[in-house]
Amino acid sequence: MQIVNLEQKLNLFTETWTPKIIGELNGQHVKLAKLQGEFVWHSHQNEDELFYVLKGTLIIKLKDKTVTLKPGEMYIIPKGIEHKPIAHEEVHVLLFEPAAIKHTGDVTHELTKEKLDWI
Amino acid sequence: MQIVNLEQKLNLFTETWTPKIIGELNGQHVKLAKLQGEFVWHSHQNEDELFYVLKGTLIIKLKDKTVTLKPGEMYIIPKGIEHKPIAHEEVHVLLFEPAAIKHTGDVTHELTKEKLDWI
Repeated sequence: MQIVNLEQKLNLFTETWTPKIIGELNGQHVKLAKLQGEFVWHSHQNEDELFYVLKGTLIIKLKDKTVTLKPGEMYIIPKGIEHKPIAHEEVHVLLFEPAAIKHTGDVTHELTKEKLDWI
Repeated sequence: MQIVNLEQKLNLFTETWTPKIIGELNGQHVKLAKLQGEFVWHSHQNEDELFYVLKGTLIIKLKDKTVTLKPGEMYIIPKGIEHKPIAHEEVHVLLFEPAAIKHTGDVTHELTKEKLDWI
C-alpha cells in the first residue's frame, strides 16, 4: 500500500506501446502507457478495456467510427470490439483492465509483450 | 460507448460523499465523487478500492498510518482494511471498484446511499 504518483511513474520509462503496471485490485491491473505512432488493429475477446488520457490526443479507430480523446477524457472499449489506437504525437494514458489481458488482444505482433513489468 | 469527459461529469452534481457512476467494465464501476469533511471509518470485506485524486488534498486515515494524496496520486485500499477519508477542502476523486460495493462498506450510516446513480 503505497502512494502512486502518476507523473513520477511516467518519468521511469520511455518505451512506447509497452504498458507498465502501477496497481492491482480485484483482479484488475492499473497501467500507464506511452503511445506514439499507430498500433495494430486488435480486439480482446473477454475483456473490456478502459483508456484515460493524461497527455496528448489519442485517436481510437473503430470499425464504424473514430474517437478522439483529449486529456481528462476516458473511453471504454467493450470486449470483442476491434480497435486501433493512434497517437500522432506522444500520448500518455492510464489503462484499467483485467490482469490476464494481453495488450495486442487476439493478434500476436512484433509489438506484443508477453509479460508486462511493474514500475 | 461514449467519450466521458471527467470535468463535464463533475459539473453535473454538487453533493458530497455520493459517488456517481461514469463507466462499467469487467464487473467494475468507475465513479466520480466530491468529498468534503470527514467520512465514517469503514472497510469493504471483499473489495479492494482505488482512489485517484483529481482535485484537492485527500487524507485517508488507516489504523496504522495516515496517507495524504494530492492531485495525480492514487492509492489502493485492500479489502478488509479500515479507512476513513477526510477532505478539509473539497476534493474530487475518481474511484474504481467492483460494481457490487457499498461505499460505506460494513457500516450503515446516514451517509450510506443504497443505490448510486449513473451520470
